Amino acid sequence: MTKYVYMFTEGDGKNKMLLGGKGAGLCEMTQIGLPVPPGFTITTEACMKYFEEGGLPEGLWNEVQAAMKKLEEETGKKFGSEENPLLVSVRSGAPVSMPGMMDTILNLGLTDKSVLGLAQQTGNEWFAWDAYRRLLQMFGNVVMGIPHEDFEKRMDAIKRKKGIKLDVNMSVNDLKSLVRDYKRIYGRYSYEFPQRPEEQLRLSIRAVFESWNNERAKVYRQINGIPDDVGTAVNIVSMVFGNMGDDSGTGVAFTRDPRLGDKHLYGEFLINAQGEDVVAGIRTPHAINEYSKQDTNRSLPTMEEIMPEQYAELLRVAELLEKHYRDMQDIEFTIEKGRLYILQTRTGKRTAKAAVKIAVDMVEEGFIEKREALMRITPDQVDTLLHPQIDPTAEHTAIAKGLAASPGAAVGHVIFDPEKAVALSKKGEKIILVRPETTPDDIHGMHASEGILTARGGMTSHAAVVARAMGKPAIVGCAELEIHMEESYFASRGTRIYEGDLITIDGTTGEVYAGSVPLIKPTLSGDLEKILTWADETRALGIRANADTPEQAKTAREFGAEGIGLARTEHMFFGSERLPIMQEMIMAQSRKDRIKALRKLLPMQRSDFVEFFRTMEGYPVIIRLLDPPLHEFLPSIEELTLEITELKMKLKNAKTMGEMDVVLNEISEKKRLLDVVSELHEINPMLGFRGCRLGIIYPEIYEMQVMAIIQAAAEVIRDGKNIYPEIMIPLIGHVNELETLKEHLTKVAGEEMKKEGVDIEYMFGTMIEIPRAALTADEIAKVAEFFSFGTNDLTQMTFGYSRDDAQAKFLRKYVEMKILDKDPFATIDRDGVGQLVKIGTEKGKKARTGLEVGVCGEHGGDPDSIEFFHLSGLDYVSCSPYRVPIARLAAAQSEIQHPRN
Amino acid sequence: MTKYVYMFTEGDGKNKMLLGGKGAGLCEMTQIGLPVPPGFTITTEACMKYFEEGGLPEGLWNEVQAAMKKLEEETGKKFGSEENPLLVSVRSGAPVSMPGMMDTILNLGLTDKSVLGLAQQTGNEWFAWDAYRRLLQMFGNVVMGIPHEDFEKRMDAIKRKKGIKLDVNMSVNDLKSLVRDYKRIYGRYSYEFPQRPEEQLRLSIRAVFESWNNERAKVYRQINGIPDDVGTAVNIVSMVFGNMGDDSGTGVAFTRDPRLGDKHLYGEFLINAQGEDVVAGIRTPHAINEYSKQDTNRSLPTMEEIMPEQYAELLRVAELLEKHYRDMQDIEFTIEKGRLYILQTRTGKRTAKAAVKIAVDMVEEGFIEKREALMRITPDQVDTLLHPQIDPTAEHTAIAKGLAASPGAAVGHVIFDPEKAVALSKKGEKIILVRPETTPDDIHGMHASEGILTARGGMTSHAAVVARAMGKPAIVGCAELEIHMEESYFASRGTRIYEGDLITIDGTTGEVYAGSVPLIKPTLSGDLEKILTWADETRALGIRANADTPEQAKTAREFGAEGIGLARTEHMFFGSERLPIMQEMIMAQSRKDRIKALRKLLPMQRSDFVEFFRTMEGYPVIIRLLDPPLHEFLPSIEELTLEITELKMKLKNAKTMGEMDVVLNEISEKKRLLDVVSELHEINPMLGFRGCRLGIIYPEIYEMQVMAIIQAAAEVIRDGKNIYPEIMIPLIGHVNELETLKEHLTKVAGEEMKKEGVDIEYMFGTMIEIPRAALTADEIAKVAEFFSFGTNDLTQMTFGYSRDDAQAKFLRKYVEMKILDKDPFATIDRDGVGQLVKIGTEKGKKARTGLEVGVCGEHGGDPDSIEFFHLSGLDYVSCSPYRVPIARLAAAQSEIQHPRN
Repeated sequence: MTKYVYMFTEGDGKNKMLLGGKGAGLCEMTQIGLPVPPGFTITTEACMKYFEEGGLPEGLWNEVQAAMKKLEEETGKKFGSEENPLLVSVRSGAPVSMPGMMDTILNLGLTDKSVLGLAQQTGNEWFAWDAYRRLLQMFGNVVMGIPHEDFEKRMDAIKRKKGIKLDVNMSVNDLKSLVRDYKRIYGRYSYEFPQRPEEQLRLSIRAVFESWNNERAKVYRQINGIPDDVGTAVNIVSMVFGNMGDDSGTGVAFTRDPRLGDKHLYGEFLINAQGEDVVAGIRTPHAINEYSKQDTNRSLPTMEEIMPEQYAELLRVAELLEKHYRDMQDIEFTIEKGRLYILQTRTGKRTAKAAVKIAVDMVEEGFIEKREALMRITPDQVDTLLHPQIDPTAEHTAIAKGLAASPGAAVGHVIFDPEKAVALSKKGEKIILVRPETTPDDIHGMHASEGILTARGGMTSHAAVVARAMGKPAIVGCAELEIHMEESYFASRGTRIYEGDLITIDGTTGEVYAGSVPLIKPTLSGDLEKILTWADETRALGIRANADTPEQAKTAREFGAEGIGLARTEHMFFGSERLPIMQEMIMAQSRKDRIKALRKLLPMQRSDFVEFFRTMEGYPVIIRLLDPPLHEFLPSIEELTLEITELKMKLKNAKTMGEMDVVLNEISEKKRLLDVVSELHEINPMLGFRGCRLGIIYPEIYEMQVMAIIQAAAEVIRDGKNIYPEIMIPLIGHVNELETLKEHLTKVAGEEMKKEGVDIEYMFGTMIEIPRAALTADEIAKVAEFFSFGTNDLTQMTFGYSRDDAQAKFLRKYVEMKILDKDPFATIDRDGVGQLVKIGTEKGKKARTGLEVGVCGEHGGDPDSIEFFHLSGLDYVSCSPYRVPIARLAAAQSEIQHPRN
Repeated sequence: MTKYVYMFTEGDGKNKMLLGGKGAGLCEMTQIGLPVPPGFTITTEACMKYFEEGGLPEGLWNEVQAAMKKLEEETGKKFGSEENPLLVSVRSGAPVSMPGMMDTILNLGLTDKSVLGLAQQTGNEWFAWDAYRRLLQMFGNVVMGIPHEDFEKRMDAIKRKKGIKLDVNMSVNDLKSLVRDYKRIYGRYSYEFPQRPEEQLRLSIRAVFESWNNERAKVYRQINGIPDDVGTAVNIVSMVFGNMGDDSGTGVAFTRDPRLGDKHLYGEFLINAQGEDVVAGIRTPHAINEYSKQDTNRSLPTMEEIMPEQYAELLRVAELLEKHYRDMQDIEFTIEKGRLYILQTRTGKRTAKAAVKIAVDMVEEGFIEKREALMRITPDQVDTLLHPQIDPTAEHTAIAKGLAASPGAAVGHVIFDPEKAVALSKKGEKIILVRPETTPDDIHGMHASEGILTARGGMTSHAAVVARAMGKPAIVGCAELEIHMEESYFASRGTRIYEGDLITIDGTTGEVYAGSVPLIKPTLSGDLEKILTWADETRALGIRANADTPEQAKTAREFGAEGIGLARTEHMFFGSERLPIMQEMIMAQSRKDRIKALRKLLPMQRSDFVEFFRTMEGYPVIIRLLDPPLHEFLPSIEELTLEITELKMKLKNAKTMGEMDVVLNEISEKKRLLDVVSELHEINPMLGFRGCRLGIIYPEIYEMQVMAIIQAAAEVIRDGKNIYPEIMIPLIGHVNELETLKEHLTKVAGEEMKKEGVDIEYMFGTMIEIPRAALTADEIAKVAEFFSFGTNDLTQMTFGYSRDDAQAKFLRKYVEMKILDKDPFATIDRDGVGQLVKIGTEKGKKARTGLEVGVCGEHGGDPDSIEFFHLSGLDYVSCSPYRVPIARLAAAQSEIQHPRN
């Protein structure tokens, strides 16, 4: 028989998979002697078995009953007793933290009878009835599925009738009548609140299991890449009460500041309250110490002031837990009549900034090794740190200020409804989600937004925690905001902002601005720079950048790129003085005329390259020769047809013969252009006349480009600079294409070097972006000195997806339907496209020792793809300049997890 | 030292690679005791060495001199002697026959002095001077490159002056003055005719080597797929003379009729002539026997009548050679003063019809085995036999009749110039090349044409031989034709046909018709049917056909298809009553409305399938569900824009409000359609929203198709027929797509079977046409019960070529430049696309035992590709019905050359 239940005193604190994160933490803490209320954990295996069998697995209930017996022994109380009742909480706890996503029920064990026992035992009738009405409310909602509002409306009605505002001001009789009303609500749904505690427990366990598959949990897992077949553990913990008077309370504490990473206990607490009151963000919590104070609670006394002893104890526990787990902890605690209980500990979520600071500090404090520190930061966090900031030179006046809950700035349209946010973001709109407060039901809307702004809640409120985890800028508890959802606007400091209006939020300062304030991209420095230097010491993959202009190359260098993996030359032909010459070249009817036009472009290309080489002194620069189809340099058929129609109108209105002649000439010019454009038209341009196909049919184009490269290199070398040009041919599918071009272009390069009187070491290589090239990489490597995988096109052709069309037509649906795990244009498809990358790399490296192999598709900046490229034996990845820091970390993490050699 | 020279008495008659076809034949014939003039062969190795070193290889000349010495000993004559001169011919002879493509020089050894010796020795002054002027002419043309016409003009001038018509009527003095004139022509080009015979020989050998690389030889090799690095042998043969009087002659004989394959000696000869006179087609040759008579020589006496003894000897030699070589031979012979010499034997070229008959006869005569017979026919010949014939029911009157030189009928535009024929055929025009006669220089024009028509030449003329080899219909020696090249027309029986006019030729009867006469496709029967039955006994690959209609399926069955490998269902939606319903489905805004439209299509699809299943009773039928993008069923944006513009004009001219309303409604209807079409527009439709992607996003489409299949199958099964439906999903790239569809569609099929009360065994499988599908075939085979490689799309995506665009833009050039060996859409690219086929087959078969794997791209009917599919372990190929017989033979040949087991 499988064992499904573990007491906290026996469970293996390392086995989160089996016991869930919360359960493992409770076991571990119990076993190292911390003040944890007695309890036990039902395993995730039981949960999965539950789904398999469609009911509680065999033997589970017996084990639970045995464990309850032990609990009764340990606490000296009795489940359902009228004299000394044992109350328990039933808490979900998955192996990977999913905060607020699943259900919890408190005060289980209370019945019409035992509530009297509890009143007697505690000498606090008010507390007993309050606990009972809370149970009825939670159980009704979680187990029976009765809407929250039904209960709240009842309570509001009583408070209104009595003219009171806070729950705590209700009388015992109010609570008793509330319990009666709540039971009537059950009746309306044809339910009955079970008076047998075992029945309560059994139904609650089932409900927690079921909550694994509720909608918001599923969405959360999808967003966070958590598998569906893990299940949640269930923790049954004997209740301790933070709501037993002013010597009681409950709170949350981080062992270090989760916003900035400073080494300081940080948290909030509420006097005379149960745990859910803190998380829900309804009452304003007190800071636990001076350091933790916010604008909202600056005037309230701290826990350190109110309960110095318990605070000291908490400090000791925090230190002990951090040392034990060797990472920053997020601790839930309750004080029951002056006694501190620890209800949960887990690795604390933190902002990107905090993550980096804590990792660096912990290395310097001797807690962890550098390699461990590198694993403590996610590439996404590095991305967040490079998120835009408000441009300090821009003029702007704040219209509101709230808590700076998650750093970074964002601009977007105000949207109040999460569903609407999702719909609009699918259309490409940038959204700022504005809510009174957020609940787990809003998670998809938050994910779809650029940033989050709430009127209520503290630094540990739902909105704050989730936004930090998502790396999205957020301002919470912005009390100035008066939100009028029905009329679709909010007001603040005399300004009205309607739904759809643009606002800017600064999650680093907590300030809200009307309109779109200019943002700037940050630079590397401080802790982040330090950790990325460690990444550089660790990683096996080289990191280069894709850059089309010398400015981009400069940015890439600043972010730590070790070369340019892709410089596209076509962008150099689009300048206003160049485009007409390019068009002249395309319109030319003979090689001679084409060469004439190309000669005019030559000095322009040369000067581009000179600047490029100067910027990248000492580093390799891969220049890709012309790739796109020629029609991209010409106006479209539609444009030309319109222009011709307009000219015809002009002709009709012409007054003189001379005027007519001028217009007629223009028309015939446009018609000639239209002929060329029509001739160049292709049904599938993606698979058409471009890349090396152009270079072979019109050899003069690549000739000019190679001449420009060699002349530029010669100029820079004469200045005494070291440069490493690499000439790259796009769209090779057959070795003979490359051979033909290599033979011709090395001759051109040789002649040019002779003219310049300079000997330039350069490499000649190819993109691998056509499936056939990867499959025949052994042949191609005999000619190419380097490969660069163009995984964008390779993905298009390997899947048969047109990137321009697929997304809207079916690809997004495919991801939703889980036909595809991920968008293969964002993260490389390891099984298919990746297989070609592997085949190409292996065959290529076998055929030519020292073949340089890299990747320059957008996957080069995606952490999951980087891991795959590391595993596939590539030499480097090349990505956009702003993703270089992310790639540096991802590459280091890949090496740590899968050391090469 | 490599041995470069072999006497006919020592060379290995089997080693064609080394000695060339002609040399090996001469060695073989010499060694089996046939009357062959003494001589020797210079190897093909010497030729390749010559190109490598740019001159005669070391030692060759010494060997040649030694061999010449032996020749002098054998013949008792002396090279260059004034008394008893030895004359030799220098003849090219490649390993693979390239008739007329390379050069030959006769009468070598004559000089100003030895011509006198020859005259004395033969007692025939006229003959001696005629031989000398022929040498000057050939040597001048072949070795010195002096144009033919220069010499011919001289001769014509003399003949004109003397008022004579035939060469033989020239006097000795005429010939002597012609020799003087010819020498003067040499002088004009600053050449001199060498008076040292060794010099003549040396230069001639070089010239023959060089002729390996002349333009026409290179074109011939390219067309016939002969490698360039083989080289030609050179044969030095002591001269025998067919032009020594009326007891001499020369001719060509086939051991069986090369037109029809009948077992009868067949040939032509000329009295008092040298070999080139026959081939050149200038004098009308005599038939060698009654059987060989043609319209042109019906009145001339036969060789059998003139030289009965020599004819009997020839018959004996022919029989012996056929027995020796176990195949039909093409023999060149010369009679010198009553003595028969055999100058050459080779496997005779033959028409497709003859090839089949000879192969079948030889099996029945016990000459060869069935497997050998199967190797004697090329798939192209089977294709030729299935070439169109004149529809016997059509009305038509011949405008001319010539020799039926190569069977089959063709329709095309008359073109006189081979260059023009090439240019126009590239544009897709069908051409009939019309020439007075053809020469090796016309080869590319012949290749580009549908058929050939010449005014001159016999059945063994250049035009006849080459057309037969190419399998193209040809009529030669059509003397009625008056061709006026300058004025671009020909006249016959009072009709003028101008260049560009359509004509029809019937190469089976020799008749020419004006205009386009209807053609019909033939059926299988007789010898061809017999040999294809042998092929069926031999082959390992199954042969199926691609058929979209029951009629096509019927044709496929008649041609021997063992099932349908691809029935495309989209063609069933294009009928005039169906298209509007299909459009209604596409325009529908909801699933409900789509289903409504699809329900109307269901009975139509069902009745299609019923007929299909009935036709293919007992055989498998693979039905592919809808594949093309939806916009293919709608009018184009251009059409709609035009229609709307026209409606607007109509609106402007509307006279009443009612009229206006009608037009306005029409406009808004069209605009709605335009919106849908615009929304469906894709940048790269090839990689777009089609195939299973449609089937997944709009599941109701495939639902309806599966319902129709099952209902139809049920109906046919109830009639007591055996059927084997296979349902095929197009465009699968990821196993999850197939899994999703399989789960859903097998449910639909199951429900339908339940309703019908019939249990139908069917298979569920997929096209493999996306590179990713081939790469992950192991995953896909877990879901698919069969694979069918769609090599058309697979080629597009593996190469990144859009079939619609590539041909004109760069693909044709690539083949010309030899970047690609062959058009990969015609013959499978074994290295790239083929690699995916292999990977897919291996992974698939490994993952599922008994997985059925076939191919249904156009490559399924291409012999070279069929060999590859055989080698790759596929189970069957599927091709268009008319290519089924070709595929049957090609599959058998693959098995013979690469037996499976």
